[in-house]
Amino acid sequence: MVKIDPDRLLTDLKRLRSFGATGPGVVRLALSPVDLASREWLAGRMGEAGLDAVIDGVGAVFGRSRKSGPALVIGSHTDTQPTGGWLDGAMGVIYGLEIARALAEHEATSHLAVDVASWIDEEGTFSGLLGSRSFVGDSVDESIRDATNRQGQRLADVLEAAGLAGRPRVRFEPGRHVAYLEPHIEQGGRLEAAGKSIGVVTTIVGLRELRLRFTGQRNHAGTTPMTIRRDAGAALVAFIPRMNEAFARLADADTVWTVGRIDLDPGSLSVVPGAADMYLQFRDANAARLQAMQDALADLVRDFNAQGPVSVELTTIDEPMQPVTMHAALADHLARAADAVAPGQWIRMPSGAAHDAQVIARCMPACMMFVPSIGGVSHDFIEDTAEAHIALGCQVAATAAAAMLQEEWAKRS
Amino acid sequence: MVKIDPDRLLTDLKRLRSFGATGPGVVRLALSPVDLASREWLAGRMGEAGLDAVIDGVGAVFGRSRKSGPALVIGSHTDTQPTGGWLDGAMGVIYGLEIARALAEHEATSHLAVDVASWIDEEGTFSGLLGSRSFVGDSVDESIRDATNRQGQRLADVLEAAGLAGRPRVRFEPGRHVAYLEPHIEQGGRLEAAGKSIGVVTTIVGLRELRLRFTGQRNHAGTTPMTIRRDAGAALVAFIPRMNEAFARLADADTVWTVGRIDLDPGSLSVVPGAADMYLQFRDANAARLQAMQDALADLVRDFNAQGPVSVELTTIDEPMQPVTMHAALADHLARAADAVAPGQWIRMPSGAAHDAQVIARCMPACMMFVPSIGGVSHDFIEDTAEAHIALGCQVAATAAAAMLQEEWAKRS
Repeated sequence: MVKIDPDRLLTDLKRLRSFGATGPGVVRLALSPVDLASREWLAGRMGEAGLDAVIDGVGAVFGRSRKSGPALVIGSHTDTQPTGGWLDGAMGVIYGLEIARALAEHEATSHLAVDVASWIDEEGTFSGLLGSRSFVGDSVDESIRDATNRQGQRLADVLEAAGLAGRPRVRFEPGRHVAYLEPHIEQGGRLEAAGKSIGVVTTIVGLRELRLRFTGQRNHAGTTPMTIRRDAGAALVAFIPRMNEAFARLADADTVWTVGRIDLDPGSLSVVPGAADMYLQFRDANAARLQAMQDALADLVRDFNAQGPVSVELTTIDEPMQPVTMHAALADHLARAADAVAPGQWIRMPSGAAHDAQVIARCMPACMMFVPSIGGVSHDFIEDTAEAHIALGCQVAATAAAAMLQEEWAKRS
Repeated sequence: MVKIDPDRLLTDLKRLRSFGATGPGVVRLALSPVDLASREWLAGRMGEAGLDAVIDGVGAVFGRSRKSGPALVIGSHTDTQPTGGWLDGAMGVIYGLEIARALAEHEATSHLAVDVASWIDEEGTFSGLLGSRSFVGDSVDESIRDATNRQGQRLADVLEAAGLAGRPRVRFEPGRHVAYLEPHIEQGGRLEAAGKSIGVVTTIVGLRELRLRFTGQRNHAGTTPMTIRRDAGAALVAFIPRMNEAFARLADADTVWTVGRIDLDPGSLSVVPGAADMYLQFRDANAARLQAMQDALADLVRDFNAQGPVSVELTTIDEPMQPVTMHAALADHLARAADAVAPGQWIRMPSGAAHDAQVIARCMPACMMFVPSIGGVSHDFIEDTAEAHIALGCQVAATAAAAMLQEEWAKRS
């Protein structure tokens, strides 16, 4: 069995952390100077590992194996949130690097081709999931032209200034690229709560984002008796338990819904709110359930409007994101590897967060694997994972990667 | 019986409206250039009515009668909200002017002294109720030194620039000032709903303003199962019905409470709120009830904290404002006048809004009288009252004013 080198893995991961290190966390926004510097370093490490490495026309780093035959792509992203952790994305990329090295070092696996990717802007500093979208063949020219970061810098200008604008963009290679593996930290607390070390991802959940706007009558909070008020805020608050009840009837243990923001208008203590907005997000692995939840919401809205005295309007904030099922045979490879390396220490679970894998799955079979996040924390400076879990996860991923490629060789022989 | 002149009343009221007229509304913020111009005009009209008029050291306009004997002060404020109506405050001041004129014109009442006041900054552009506070003898020097408007102008500088800073401040005259009458628009919809024309105010309600801060755990909205969340926003929403239930048990028909503002932190759709603030105001004419409501809230907070998993903290935003009972004998004068002028067309009612009268009541007997607000609307450009109601209200106030002063003369003879 292929063996990864935990020390080499952790050394590279800590070196990457030094680019943008801020206390225990990392600030390495996509295409920032420190991100560009880390990409140069990463491309250099890929070259040392025998990969042909490029930083492409959108900023993705891609290390292409010189081996012939079917190739597995292992990757994730090294850009971070504005207050990011050191492992979110970064860990999966360095896993890829270490697995490419480890396979090359073992005679039984030295013929196997692993390409390693650090996509760009998964976190949406300019345009979320840009690198993986470009890789699968989406036209990203419009995003590049229109996208700006919070400081108002244009993506096109930033790529130009970095000398990347004219470079070719790395694309999916049909026939050669046979599978995609994205190892990642869990970013939630399920593995820790279950006392497990490895999560084999079944599905990346879909999500819907909606706004409910309640319209009543703005009034003086002192002179308007309770009985004649049309308080939009009170109506919003009264709506939520009905929604919770309807969703609970439809939900399974993995369904989640969140009211992340409430705005009362005018937001003054002395004024009965005349309007109130509630922003709702819900996620589930099952597309039919997501639709059933939205239908239930529409029914509640209809009932609420029939009842009065405050009206409510439901609008979609963003395009719905459909659930993406991970490739079953690849997930089984991960499960077998986990069973071999960490027997009894793994579970199957959905991914509640979005990942590049949901984009890559549009062009080839894709799978994901999780290691535990301490306290379930992510997108925060204190994000962390036990070193033993980091090493274990890489060994599981390497074992699975070898098996995936060996199966491809077997099919072709 | 003294008779007011409705045409003269409405002409003056409309002339005052022209200072700061904006569509159907008025923008005449305290001590703004247009407000200062209107004060010059008002002082002139007072002089023409035989009053000795001054604009005092805080900007209040005070027209002092030259008659000897007990004097009734009639007044309100002519400054407006940022988007104000034409009658809020202004009507009561012009009532005073018209009543002073009408009493002087009738032989039976020509000896009666009415002083007319337009206080300053009732609406709190710089420092709420400034004029009445100065009149009753509060030290307002600190307010003058520290207060600024939304544009950051200092009250002290504005008074200086207007040439008012060095002037004497008008003060309550013990022995001479025997009563205060403040006629006002209702600013609510109770008179209209009851089909009545005159409201005799029993009490100006007290109010309390509190903040409830819920503290849970910020988490990823996709990866955090519902069962392990500590969602501060959901806790806030769950708290409100318990509060409504507790308040409803304590309330009478006039008790009001309002959640005017809710802030979820961080306010992102993808993040389970880790903190949530709710701003609460409640008002009642009964001080014991206000305390009982606050006690009930404290009990709920204790229960909520005992229960978990989200904690809540209750803090006072501002000094509680105690209810102020209107002087019973003066209210009876208003009631008798209403019965004479508009039999069956009046009710007794509390004032849900704050007024200068609650301050003036600290130095002398005070009373208030309301006329209907169309649609209950106030603090809005479309605020209005039927001209027939404006005229009727002034006649009731004049009749009551004469009776109040005649009673004082009778006492002293």
